[in-house]
Parts: sequence; C-alpha cells; structure tokens
Amino acid sequence: MDLKNARERLAKIQAKHAAYDHALEIISYDGMTTAPKGTAQNRARALSVLTEDIYKMSTSKNTEKLLEALDARKDELTEAEKRQVFLLLKSFRDMKKIPMDEYVAYQVLLVEADDVWHKAKETSDFALFEPYLEKIFETNKRFAGYLDPSKKPYDYWLNEFEEGLNMKICDKFFGRLKERLVPLIEKAVKKPQVDDSVLKGNFSDAKQEELAEYLMKLIGLDTDHVGLGTTEHPFTTTIGSHHDVRITTNYKKDDFSSSMFSVIHEGGHALYETGANDEFAYTVLDGGVSMGIHESQSRFYENILGRSRGFCDYIFPELCRIFPSVKKYTADDFYKAVNKVQPSLIRTEADEVTYCLHVMIRYELEKRVMAGELKVHDLPGEWNRLYKEYLGVGVPDDRRGVLQDSHWSGGMIGYFPSYALGSAYGAQFLKKMKETVDVDGDIAKGDFSKVNEWNRQNIWQYASLYTPAQLLKRVLGKDFDPDCYLDYLEEKAKSVYGV
Amino acid sequence: MDLKNARERLAKIQAKHAAYDHALEIISYDGMTTAPKGTAQNRARALSVLTEDIYKMSTSKNTEKLLEALDARKDELTEAEKRQVFLLLKSFRDMKKIPMDEYVAYQVLLVEADDVWHKAKETSDFALFEPYLEKIFETNKRFAGYLDPSKKPYDYWLNEFEEGLNMKICDKFFGRLKERLVPLIEKAVKKPQVDDSVLKGNFSDAKQEELAEYLMKLIGLDTDHVGLGTTEHPFTTTIGSHHDVRITTNYKKDDFSSSMFSVIHEGGHALYETGANDEFAYTVLDGGVSMGIHESQSRFYENILGRSRGFCDYIFPELCRIFPSVKKYTADDFYKAVNKVQPSLIRTEADEVTYCLHVMIRYELEKRVMAGELKVHDLPGEWNRLYKEYLGVGVPDDRRGVLQDSHWSGGMIGYFPSYALGSAYGAQFLKKMKETVDVDGDIAKGDFSKVNEWNRQNIWQYASLYTPAQLLKRVLGKDFDPDCYLDYLEEKAKSVYGV
Repeated sequence: MDLKNARERLAKIQAKHAAYDHALEIISYDGMTTAPKGTAQNRARALSVLTEDIYKMSTSKNTEKLLEALDARKDELTEAEKRQVFLLLKSFRDMKKIPMDEYVAYQVLLVEADDVWHKAKETSDFALFEPYLEKIFETNKRFAGYLDPSKKPYDYWLNEFEEGLNMKICDKFFGRLKERLVPLIEKAVKKPQVDDSVLKGNFSDAKQEELAEYLMKLIGLDTDHVGLGTTEHPFTTTIGSHHDVRITTNYKKDDFSSSMFSVIHEGGHALYETGANDEFAYTVLDGGVSMGIHESQSRFYENILGRSRGFCDYIFPELCRIFPSVKKYTADDFYKAVNKVQPSLIRTEADEVTYCLHVMIRYELEKRVMAGELKVHDLPGEWNRLYKEYLGVGVPDDRRGVLQDSHWSGGMIGYFPSYALGSAYGAQFLKKMKETVDVDGDIAKGDFSKVNEWNRQNIWQYASLYTPAQLLKRVLGKDFDPDCYLDYLEEKAKSVYGV
Repeated sequence: MDLKNARERLAKIQAKHAAYDHALEIISYDGMTTAPKGTAQNRARALSVLTEDIYKMSTSKNTEKLLEALDARKDELTEAEKRQVFLLLKSFRDMKKIPMDEYVAYQVLLVEADDVWHKAKETSDFALFEPYLEKIFETNKRFAGYLDPSKKPYDYWLNEFEEGLNMKICDKFFGRLKERLVPLIEKAVKKPQVDDSVLKGNFSDAKQEELAEYLMKLIGLDTDHVGLGTTEHPFTTTIGSHHDVRITTNYKKDDFSSSMFSVIHEGGHALYETGANDEFAYTVLDGGVSMGIHESQSRFYENILGRSRGFCDYIFPELCRIFPSVKKYTADDFYKAVNKVQPSLIRTEADEVTYCLHVMIRYELEKRVMAGELKVHDLPGEWNRLYKEYLGVGVPDDRRGVLQDSHWSGGMIGYFPSYALGSAYGAQFLKKMKETVDVDGDIAKGDFSKVNEWNRQNIWQYASLYTPAQLLKRVLGKDFDPDCYLDYLEEKAKSVYGV
C-alpha cells in the first residue's frame, strides 16, 4: 500500500460521505421546516434510493480493505487520521451487520413517522402514531441484536449516544440526582411561589424572531453560517459540514421565554458544531462527539449562562425594547421568573431544578419498553402515571404528554439521558472555566468572547477527535462528578427561594 | 434480453436519477431561499460529489447497453417507455460528450455564480459578476461544441430549451412581433396615460403573503404539494417528482402587483408540473416538455386569465379586504392599472404589450455574445443602449438593468425566447379553449375548474410525453401562428386605450 495514496483515498471517502449526508440532512431539514404538507412520501422515495447507495458505499469491500490496511499502519498516521480510521471501521462494520433492505426500510419509516407524529401531536391522537412508534422500538431492538448481541438492546443504544454509558451508570446517576433533587424541589415549592407574569402576554412571531436573531448574535453565532428556522420541536442540524448549521425554534404566542431559551439552547449546539477545527470539515471527525457533550454545551448556554443573574440583568433592557409589556417589571422579576421552580408538563420549558425529572421519566419508559416490560400501547398511561408520581402534575392530553418530544419519531431511543448528563458535565465545566475566566462578570456585560474562547479551546475545536471520557479528562483533569451539578442547582434554588 | 426484466431496470434507473435530482434540487432551492449567506462553498462541495456520481451513472456502459437493447425492440414498448428510452439515450449520450471534470466544474461554477449574482445585484456591481458570467458564456459555447459541432452554439441551446427552435425561427418570430407591436405601443403611449396608483402604497410582506396564499388556492393549486418561498427572483422548481413543487415570489414594499402576478405566473408553472400523469412520477417524462410550453402556461395564468377583465372584477373585493388603501379605487381602475402599456425597466413587471421587447433585447444580446460579436464586459452598455432604442427608457443602474434576471447566473442562456414564444402559444390555446369552455364567464366567477381541466386534459397530463411541436399539433389541430397572439394583444390594448 502506498500510504500517500491511501491517505488521499481516506479523505475522498469521507468527503463523499459528507456530500451524501448533506443531501439527507437538507432533505430532512426541508421536510421539517419548509416542505408542503403532502410531500413526505416523495421525500421517502429519494431517501430510500440515497440511503441504499450510502449503504453500498459503506459496505464496499475496497473501502474496508483500505481502512484495514491503514489500521495496520496506524502508527504512521496522525492522531486525526487514526481516529478517522477507527470511527469509519466501526460505522462501516456496524452497517454490514444490518441487512440492506432493513436499513433502508428503517430510514423510510423515520420519514413517515415524523410526518405522522406531527399530525398526531396536532390532534393529540396517540393511536395514530402508535403503530409507527411500535415499529421504531421493534426495529431499534432488532438492530441492537444485530449490532452487539452481547449487550442488552437499551445498553447498546445508550452507548451509541454517549460512549461508555449503560443502564447501570444511568441508574446510579439518576439515583443520586433523585436523592438530592426531590428534597430540594419539596423545599422550593413550599416557599411563596414566584410570579412569572413578566414572561406572559401576547407576542407576535415577528417580535420573537427579532429577539431570536439578537440572541444568536449576542452569544457569538456567526449568522453567515448558522440559520434559523421554525419547527414544531426545536432542534439543531448540520448540513454537510460545520460551515452550515441550522437551528430551529417554535414561537409560543403567550410566552416569549419558550422560544428565547430554545434559541439559546440550540445556539449552544450550533456554537459547538461551528467551532470545530476547519481541518475536520468533510471528515468523520466533524460534528460533536456525543450527545452528552453536545447537551453540555446547549444546556450550558441555555441555563448556566442564559438563566444567570448577570445575563438576565444584561438582556432586560433589550426585552423591554422588543416587548413593551415587559417594562412593567424589573430585571429581578425576570430572573426569578425564568428560574421559577415548578413541576410542569413540558420538558423543554422546565426549570433547571425539575428538568432532570422529565428526563428520568423518559429514561424509565424507554428502559421498560426496550426490555419488553412495557407495551408501546401502554406508554401514554405510564407517562401520565409517572408525571403524577415524579412531578405531581396531571397530564391533560397526549399532545402535552407522551407526544411532546420529536426524539422517538426520529428513532432516537437512548438520547434523553444525555440531557441530564450534559447538564451535569456543564456544571463541572463551569467550575473549571471559572479558574481562568470571569464568567459572571463577562456575561453581566453581555461579553461572551472569553467564555466562547474557553469552550472553543477546550471542547469545540476537537469535535469528534476524542471520546467523551477522554475529553472530560482533558478538560477537567479529573473524573466526572454529578454532585458538582447538584451543588450548582442548590445554589440556584437558594438565589431564588432562599432555601 | 428479458423484456420484463429490462423494463424493471429502466424504471429503476429513472427512479435513481429522480432521487439524485431531488437532492440537487433541494440543495439548490435551500440555497436560494433559506440557507445562511456564507454557505455557498459548502453546497458546492456536496453538489460536486453528487454531480460526479450522476455523471458516472449516466455514462455507465451497462445502462447504455440496456437502453440500446430496449431501443432495438421499441415496437414492443409502450408509448411512454419508447419516449423514456429516447430521452434517456439522448441525455446520456450528450453527457458522455462532455468530459466529467468539466461537467462537474460547471455545476460548481453555477452555485458560486448564483451567490455572486445575488451580491452583485444587491450592490449594482456588474464587475463583481462579470468573471463568472464570462465563464458561463464561455462554457456554454464550449459545451455546445462538444454536443453538436454542426450547429452554431446559440442554435444548440435554443433547441435545448425548445425542441426545434433556432435563430432563424426566432428572427422571423421576433420580426413579426416587432412589425405589429411597435406601432401598437406608439399608439397606446400617445393616449392619456392610465393612472396606476391603485397598485401603489405600503404593503407588508405578511399581507402580500396572505394574498399569495389566497391566489394559490384560487387558481387551483394543491398546497399540500406546492409550497411558497421568497427569493430575489421568483421561480418554480420541482423536487424529485411532480408531487413536490415549490414556487417563490418577491415582495415589493410599494407595489403589491409585482408579487401578485409573480405568484400567478409561477402558479401556472406549478399547475403544469403538478398536473402530470401520476404514472410519470420518478421517470424522465415527469416535468414539462419545454420552456416554451411551460411559459405558455405560466403566462396564460398570469396574463390571459390574471389580467383579464373578469378576473380583475372578481379579485377586487379581496384586494380591498387585504389592502384597505385599494378601497378608494374601482375594479376598472385596477384592470386598467395592471394593463397599463408603459415601456419600463423590469421584464417581470412589464405589461403584456411591451413585454416581448424585453425578451428581444435579451435575445439580441445572447445571440451576439454567443457568436463572439459582443464581449461580456460590454453587456451593460449594450443592455442600456437597447433599452433606450427599443423601449425608450434610460437604465439608472445595473441592478435594474443587466443584473435583473437570474437566468444567466443559472447558466440558462437561450431560455428567454421561450417567454415570448410561450405567450404566443398561450393566445392560440385560449382561442381553442374558448370553443368548448366559457373562459371569460368562468373566470369572472373565480371558477378555474373547467379551464384547469381543459389544460390538464390537453397539456398538463402529458408532461414530457410529446415534443412541443407534437403537443401543439394535438391541441390546436394546426400549426403555430404568432398573429393569433398579436390579435390578442391589440384587443387588450383596445380595451384599455381604445386604440
């Protein structure tokens, strides 16, 4: 093997995959933002052809031979190339374990499921979505069996979203959170409740969009490379490379904070994506390494920065300018409102303290369905029961219950724990960051430059070069510790409720 | 050859091309509507990979053998299959005549050129766009040489947009138009000028969008399959199959008629596309047969129906509802305003009578650049000179001059004559349609159903099954006659100016 030539081929294979991913991503993004309602079948046709070709590319004998030859000479490769070879070999070998027709059928299923989920959510009709969700769970179980029969299916998928994660670790992590969160919430809700009427009113989409665009610039997004769209459920997606990232939001007419914090959250994802080393563009290293690290960034910007005292003070005059009804209130009203601890229905709008309970409910349910202990048909009932048990709230309809999130329709079973894990990583990053950056002082001045630079240097630039565990070790110099997050949450509750 | 098997392969090849076209079309549509500004290079990367793969698919020996085998047994094929084999063989053989790297480079050039054209138009800076336009003209000439060296390059491209068209036919056609249009315009402009202030004011994008959506439904578009976007230059594009069509418009703050008639124009294109026989979806027969026939539909809806007395009367109350400033006027004021004969700067906003002069200017310029008689560098000067000569108007800047249309940045040299030709086809279709449909009566009631059904039966359903000439012969039972269009225009001018 001629190493120079092999390296060129390695780059070309990745560039080719990036182009096909670009096509899939933009077809899917268009479907969720812009496409006319009746076009899902049409998209499914295109996706099935392209997915089949990607499957063939990924399982080609020539490519495998090349990767194996490079793997055999990995000592001569750069750190980045070594990781590329490792990740490509893993993903291509995984691909081969799934029969092509099943792989393609699953991609088509997801397009249709997304379409049906939208309709089901609109009309709060779980029965409409149920057969699709059943197929999705069933397929994820089956694929896990193909991919690693030695693991329990749910463990397989947890590890896919966060390398190293499994149910044992999750149980321990969530157990610890519960130990300290439940009493904290009990204390907070006994206190006189915060008045959050500063957030409520009648806010036009246009005004909320103005705020969204302001926030994107404020937190340091390069809007030449990051676009904003509107969807039922906010998300971030990268189109082909980190040079084109799209975030979406959803405007609630009666509460501007919903979109506001969605934008900052998705903005955090977009900062991580766009902050990758430019040399990683069009390679498999482009894009965040895991959903846990991703959520550590999104929830860092949304909560640790976005719901901080300094940020609330800084943003308040701008809010008054855009939404005149806010003028009746003070910055302190706003700070307390966005940090009001209140068990509620919707995960994406939950306060920081109760947030992880929403995640735990989803984790419990996924775990039981994946283990065959719970039927998809019984998910709404169990969802409602757990919301009563964990959060003490009654779920009025499936739209605000089991149908609220888009993850399951997108096949992302095993994703949810990343939100809690990422939030906890973020608190530990903050502690480390504060050793060298005046985070509170800078954010109170609306200055994100040093915070962003710290994240870029320590996290963003590496994209997928290191595993989550390696990255945490590099950044923190020590192991992950969830109590750091719990300390942070207790301090936050104290600042609002004095508990 | 097993015919059954070969037919299946024929269908599969076309489905595959449809999927790749879907990807290219949506990448490009996203680029023009939604994508962040700085992402053109990123799109170019993806397009160059996908285009290269399309090139390889199109020039594969196996596919050629299959098509030749089917061609040899064409008597056993259906009419549709026969035409599919013919069109595929033609396009694949054409593809082979262009070296792959040049073909891919041209697709990348077009992405970049579109990006630069937008910037150049914004700042009225032709010099910025000039090198790209030069390369586009140069490449189109070079490709024409590869594709059919026996033809003059411009004749080659005219025929690509309208099978059978060449400079000789165009010269004769435009000559005849000039003979009757120039005196007609002279007569009209001598009359007391029409007051078109009913169209002017301050109209929000949201209100204009409301009108656009109303119009789309009114003319019979199925908005589950036809979407509306906003772009610098309005256009229509089909994504993968006729089940997903997008039209775009552009809102002028001070004149609602600009977007209004763009929407009806692009709506006509979309009716043609979506009206195709469903069996043609995912085959090469899907989509309109030529730009002439396409423009016959778009300009039929925009002008023959949209600027008719009956339609103006019907739509007027709705306009008053959406735009209160219109209430001061009468439906007759509106009818005259949208039919005001006035030599002007912008083709897409020109009245019906002067419209073809805009087309002739572009035709003249393209012809001369393609023949090497005019340099791209000298286009702005010549553009301005011809606008003075043909239309008597001074061009204040290139934004409203040579940079106004998006066709050249899209590589569509030879397209413009289709607008005039299509307008003329449309007048002849109208005459024929009136033999069986009460067009004026129906449209005055806002009832498009019978008109649409006539177009569907006679034109839309066939998509690309027949050549333009065959289709005209089938529909009209006689040859094309431009004087029918000139009669129509004289009648229109008479109804407004009494000349």
